[in-house]
Amino acid sequence: MEPNAIRIIGLDPGLRRTGWGVIDVCGSRLAFVGCGTILPPEDAPMGERLATLHRQLAAVLERFTPHEAAVEETFVNMNPSSTLKLGQARGVVMLAPAQFGLSVAEYAPLLVKKSVVGAGRAEKAQVRMMVSILLPKATPETEDASDALAVAITHAHHRGAAARARAAL
Amino acid sequence: MEPNAIRIIGLDPGLRRTGWGVIDVCGSRLAFVGCGTILPPEDAPMGERLATLHRQLAAVLERFTPHEAAVEETFVNMNPSSTLKLGQARGVVMLAPAQFGLSVAEYAPLLVKKSVVGAGRAEKAQVRMMVSILLPKATPETEDASDALAVAITHAHHRGAAARARAAL
Repeated sequence: MEPNAIRIIGLDPGLRRTGWGVIDVCGSRLAFVGCGTILPPEDAPMGERLATLHRQLAAVLERFTPHEAAVEETFVNMNPSSTLKLGQARGVVMLAPAQFGLSVAEYAPLLVKKSVVGAGRAEKAQVRMMVSILLPKATPETEDASDALAVAITHAHHRGAAARARAAL
Repeated sequence: MEPNAIRIIGLDPGLRRTGWGVIDVCGSRLAFVGCGTILPPEDAPMGERLATLHRQLAAVLERFTPHEAAVEETFVNMNPSSTLKLGQARGVVMLAPAQFGLSVAEYAPLLVKKSVVGAGRAEKAQVRMMVSILLPKATPETEDASDALAVAITHAHHRGAAARARAAL
């Protein structure tokens, strides 16, 4: 890791699969650090599933020690019961980095696509393609891990603007 | 606490207010132990709000060392964005007892009303009234704390049946 680099973890929350992706940002350069997918046991009670998700995400945070975190805002046009379950996973996924003292930014899916592909109406395949071009060393094994890297890239592009906005307050 | 008593924590999750209520159960006798309301800072970023909720709930669990936990299942007929936020709080509220090794039971609102009042169509005021009759020493300062005690009472009534069902498997 370069001395001036900022390390970002991007997160794509889900109860069945949570993707994570870590990158280093140094000026306008991006470097892949790691990515993966957390798969809590589907047949366990809800509390245990959430505890597994939290434990494994905490282990990732301990291992890579990112400086900042970013999460994709979630589409909520699904059925209410699914929205609630996704919310439960999302709460745990936002909790873990906050417990490590990280700020947790949220980005709308449209902004993620626009940041990575350059167009808000991009297909999922285009996002994955651009992630592999921007981070050639990354080999995300799932769409969730790739999406998490896309969120990290989005944060790399927007964190400066957000920090300047805070400083101007 | 009596030697054979089981200590139960009931939880009524919410991002603005999470109610908790602890009771001891010895046979058919119920005893009030404690209750309260967690109020995460409303103006803080989501990650911090969830971290505060988790920290304060963990402190309650450390202080009262319950054996079992119960959470009210949530009405999800609200707007999707509110459902997602409630889910986030609910995920953290279910996580904390699971991290302490507790099983976390879930009860439908109808069952809570039926267990406490004897009728699924009971009004909220009737639930509060019955909580104060069943636990005369309880002085819940919020509706959320009272609802949490109602969930704990519901679990006291149903935990035996659930345990027998598990044993018969």
